[in-house]
Amino acid sequence: MKTTLEILQAAKAASPALMTLDTETKNTALLKMADALESNVADILSANAQDVEKAKATLGEVMIDRLRLDEKRVKAMADGIRDVAKLPDPVGVTLDTNNLANGLNITKKRVPIGVIGIIYESRPNVTSDAGALCFKSGNVCVLRGGKEAFCSSFAIIKALRSALKELGLNENFINIIEDTTRASATELMTATEYIDALIPRGGAGLIKACVENAKVPCIQTGTGICHVYVDKDADFEKALKIIYNAKTSRPSVCNAEEVCLVHQEVATAFLPKLKALLTTERTEKGLPCVELRCDERAHALIGGVMASETDFDTEFLDYILAIKVVDSLDEAIAHIGAHSTKHSDCIISENIDSCQRFALCVDSAAVYINASTRFTDGGEFGKGCEIGISTQKLHARGPMGLEELTSYKYIIQGNGQIR
Amino acid sequence: MKTTLEILQAAKAASPALMTLDTETKNTALLKMADALESNVADILSANAQDVEKAKATLGEVMIDRLRLDEKRVKAMADGIRDVAKLPDPVGVTLDTNNLANGLNITKKRVPIGVIGIIYESRPNVTSDAGALCFKSGNVCVLRGGKEAFCSSFAIIKALRSALKELGLNENFINIIEDTTRASATELMTATEYIDALIPRGGAGLIKACVENAKVPCIQTGTGICHVYVDKDADFEKALKIIYNAKTSRPSVCNAEEVCLVHQEVATAFLPKLKALLTTERTEKGLPCVELRCDERAHALIGGVMASETDFDTEFLDYILAIKVVDSLDEAIAHIGAHSTKHSDCIISENIDSCQRFALCVDSAAVYINASTRFTDGGEFGKGCEIGISTQKLHARGPMGLEELTSYKYIIQGNGQIR
Repeated sequence: MKTTLEILQAAKAASPALMTLDTETKNTALLKMADALESNVADILSANAQDVEKAKATLGEVMIDRLRLDEKRVKAMADGIRDVAKLPDPVGVTLDTNNLANGLNITKKRVPIGVIGIIYESRPNVTSDAGALCFKSGNVCVLRGGKEAFCSSFAIIKALRSALKELGLNENFINIIEDTTRASATELMTATEYIDALIPRGGAGLIKACVENAKVPCIQTGTGICHVYVDKDADFEKALKIIYNAKTSRPSVCNAEEVCLVHQEVATAFLPKLKALLTTERTEKGLPCVELRCDERAHALIGGVMASETDFDTEFLDYILAIKVVDSLDEAIAHIGAHSTKHSDCIISENIDSCQRFALCVDSAAVYINASTRFTDGGEFGKGCEIGISTQKLHARGPMGLEELTSYKYIIQGNGQIR
Repeated sequence: MKTTLEILQAAKAASPALMTLDTETKNTALLKMADALESNVADILSANAQDVEKAKATLGEVMIDRLRLDEKRVKAMADGIRDVAKLPDPVGVTLDTNNLANGLNITKKRVPIGVIGIIYESRPNVTSDAGALCFKSGNVCVLRGGKEAFCSSFAIIKALRSALKELGLNENFINIIEDTTRASATELMTATEYIDALIPRGGAGLIKACVENAKVPCIQTGTGICHVYVDKDADFEKALKIIYNAKTSRPSVCNAEEVCLVHQEVATAFLPKLKALLTTERTEKGLPCVELRCDERAHALIGGVMASETDFDTEFLDYILAIKVVDSLDEAIAHIGAHSTKHSDCIISENIDSCQRFALCVDSAAVYINASTRFTDGGEFGKGCEIGISTQKLHARGPMGLEELTSYKYIIQGNGQIR
């Protein structure tokens, strides 16, 4: 077994070569990696079977399903890598150029970040996904997955590295940490000498642990308490369609709606329609009902469960919706300012001024006007991929694709200039 | 005295209003702040006299000079603020816009970061400088200066806040922490609920303390172990002029040269010229000599002090230069990769291929070809100002001006789209 320190050292040593690797070689390698996943499918599935067998003692069926691989899923991972190969290479692009009066030419060029640490949980597809995105953007990755998926992830990485080796490239462009104890996560978070950026991917607990303990620059991702505000000038048909989609199409993801705010002028007319849509109509179709947790005023109109204070600060990730009646647009904006995780928030209104004020004042990565929060996604935003959704303000905000995995440098060309 | 928590709460509460303040109001306020500094010059100087008197017991003359204010220096601070008022407002600029096939329009707009913490040392001018730059970029600042300069900084902030108040604006747009014990620095570094970004400004010790202890997103600034590499195809005249400038024009700053690498093919011819320029010729002019700390091969050619291993990893900030002979361009690149702080590094060469290879492979914020490293500065780079020089890869790299004090958000305009 390699120690975490050995892996970090090897990663750092490999970085200069990957930072300057040309696009064609990178794409060739990605296609080879995709093939390697498919040709090693038997090994990957047998490693996965070990993980699944072990997990039965501790994990529930939903988590085991996230963990389980089959031929189709491995094929999907391989196709994901092939898609990454097709994306434009962000590295080396000139972002700005400036000729100064003193004769200096300053060129700002996009460059890889260097070595990226990724801490994630038990979905083995993150392994190939993150590995491919980091590789394409010229970054050496050091992956540290959940112990439940270790055998699967290790088998996937083994296949990817074999493809690199076959092409005569450095295997250490893609790395996985072999120590699955908590110590290795801590080591990664504090490896200021080796890691240029850390991206945690997973639940709120994991993100919090990274923010609290990381000494390396860290990008906070993921947690989404997303709001949909139904304005007094809302088109009810749009509002109902959007809330239905934002809440029920995939409640377990971070861009799903958790809170509905309704202007008091329309609450009496709107809330009964919303209740019918999310409860009785779904029951009639044999679909799971949405539990409505209502503040006092909403409760007076439609009943349901009385919301507790914490319900407006909870990422339910489930068929639960907190509902609050507000007096005004500004109260909605203030509520979102105080309770949103700054991920995705939406206004439904036909009033342009209200929409503009909402877009100006709501300080979230993605602010929606009359569209579902579910669109916050690298693919939907035209980035072609996604390594995570940043909910912090530094570096990148919202969906992070290949460009967001880069930094830049200034190249200053002179002819003997001094200051 | 206000507690640090009270100040942080007030800062966060003030942020939404400043984020959306229009450019004209911000500029009017900046001009008013500049006037307020001048009209309160007596109070500021008397506060400064208290700081200087107290500092005599503990600080040396160089540090006391950094601390000392006079009418001219206060006038310069005011003029600095007037210059910030003239700079273009980065907030609200559209960075990108995208019409998707599904009818959604995605607009990426530049927005303020929010609340910025700044921890700095004993130069009172940083107080007005950082305050003005944060204000112009729509960010509430929470300043935490060194205790040696507290009375001066407090008097400066009092003047700036009086200008805000006079215009009917929220005084809490600009804040200073009143507790000067170590506890308040720790509180600022860990205030994840209140601070969106932390920028430490000061010596290596301060930066290290922030990187080690901050739980809020932090931008590492400043430390510069800058290299100048004299290639085998160097123009000696340019090399001598540039090294003289980079080493001696202001040795105490982060963009000064600390290490000279010389290709072995030209070492015998070049190093004696360099030695004469930096030692005997300076002595003849009555200027302080540069101490040359030479590796074995350089020492065999020109004598001087034998360099120890640590000399190639030290930011001297003094008239000291470490010199090493290298076998090749690639050895120079590898040495810089292992020892540079990724701030500013330079190649002197007339060979275009070598220059391009150096620019591609050296992973520093600013890579120079035949020009002095001293140009790494917000003003010189055309940013009009500077809040610090980032030596990390995330968010901003190199000189940080107003644009680097912003984030962005996506505004998605739809017409009922669902996913």
